[in-house]
Amino acid sequence: MNKKPLILVTNDDGITAPGMRTLIEVMKTIGEVVVVAPDSPQSAMGHAITINSTLHVEKVQIDTDDLEYSCSGTPADCVKLAVKQILGRRPDICVSGINHGSNSSINVIYSGTMSAALEAGIEGIPAIGFSLCDYNWNADFEACKPYVKTIVENVLQHGLPEGVVLNVNIPKLPQKEIKGIKVCRQAKANWEEEFDKRKNPQGRDYYWLTGKFVNLDQGEDTDEWALENGYVSVVPVQFDLTAHHYIQNLNSWNLND
Amino acid sequence: MNKKPLILVTNDDGITAPGMRTLIEVMKTIGEVVVVAPDSPQSAMGHAITINSTLHVEKVQIDTDDLEYSCSGTPADCVKLAVKQILGRRPDICVSGINHGSNSSINVIYSGTMSAALEAGIEGIPAIGFSLCDYNWNADFEACKPYVKTIVENVLQHGLPEGVVLNVNIPKLPQKEIKGIKVCRQAKANWEEEFDKRKNPQGRDYYWLTGKFVNLDQGEDTDEWALENGYVSVVPVQFDLTAHHYIQNLNSWNLND
Repeated sequence: MNKKPLILVTNDDGITAPGMRTLIEVMKTIGEVVVVAPDSPQSAMGHAITINSTLHVEKVQIDTDDLEYSCSGTPADCVKLAVKQILGRRPDICVSGINHGSNSSINVIYSGTMSAALEAGIEGIPAIGFSLCDYNWNADFEACKPYVKTIVENVLQHGLPEGVVLNVNIPKLPQKEIKGIKVCRQAKANWEEEFDKRKNPQGRDYYWLTGKFVNLDQGEDTDEWALENGYVSVVPVQFDLTAHHYIQNLNSWNLND
Repeated sequence: MNKKPLILVTNDDGITAPGMRTLIEVMKTIGEVVVVAPDSPQSAMGHAITINSTLHVEKVQIDTDDLEYSCSGTPADCVKLAVKQILGRRPDICVSGINHGSNSSINVIYSGTMSAALEAGIEGIPAIGFSLCDYNWNADFEACKPYVKTIVENVLQHGLPEGVVLNVNIPKLPQKEIKGIKVCRQAKANWEEEFDKRKNPQGRDYYWLTGKFVNLDQGEDTDEWALENGYVSVVPVQFDLTAHHYIQNLNSWNLND
């Protein structure tokens, strides 16, 4: 590459999150970095966007001389604002994360990290969401670095087809115990939710959402299998949600009779 | 059917929205109805869930003697609460809407209406999101009624396969001008966003997200084509986001070299 690529960095844990600081550090070894990220944590925001209230953006300095912007919106808002308002030119790639916690299997649906990557993909920008399977704010992101670098360099080299972004999850393991990178499909795994019912001091009921993660998918080609077996998982993700395989069947229903 | 089906009704425009009142009215001709819906509008919430704050639920009476619950959370929260906490048994079907405004093509990604349907699908419950292509709060939902009834009855009769829910959009037309129901794929259409930059009374910049919808997909098998040509569109939607067609290509990258 003759010119340094322009890299848009965002996340859903907020602009000061350690996972994003690691991502910025690695990206600075590859290209020119601009950060546009939420001013507060936005986990589990799914693909929310802000249409009924206003958005604010502030230029901020965190711990580098890079261009960083803090935004009042969701991860998807950050990408829209960056591309349409802040950058002035199209980024060569958008990276989101590194998320504090897994976004494997069904979690991709709820993930603000992946929402940012999908939004960039919708804009036609190659995009990757990175997550470490460790929810701890003080998680050790050191082992992520070489894998993040390899995957970003490969995407810059090969590109990604229209409509496809990457969902990368990294197991919570020391670097020497990680076996490599595996291309996977999204596992058919679910949350079995429970609601923790409590009473507030005024006697009113309220609930906390809790639950446990259950993987009933026996496949060895899934992201869950890869992560459980010490691999970094890479799932190509699309935003055409059409269940093409079921169209013919639906047509047999004769809905117009 | 020997027993009346149990129908869970939700939406993203809030429990008092006229579109949902129409949906409840039609559902009462088919089965036993329980409503669990957000206590305030949640449009464009995508698949957000509430994990960092508490949820409240209130039994309310709006304009019928039906069981109705108003919830402080997102559409996805409403479905989780209904299934795990409120209903006591699994609903036979979950219907979401009728949304005030289109959720065709890429809008499915941002849609709270479809998020509720997807959440029910994840729980293994047959689910449908309904939207009328009219953003007006006082939109005329009369023409929707026969199509909503037909589609719900068909889903109760045929079921839906694991991992598939339906995204139904209804054109803004008088009933006699609607040509019928068409099974479609999600069009490749986008929003071209613009940000309307303003200054608040204190001189601080802020933004409103605006934009126009652009359909560059020439296919006659898309939801956009159907709606433009006077049909009700039905798209089968899945929550396995894996871009299966790109796995082989990614494997050729030799990410472990």
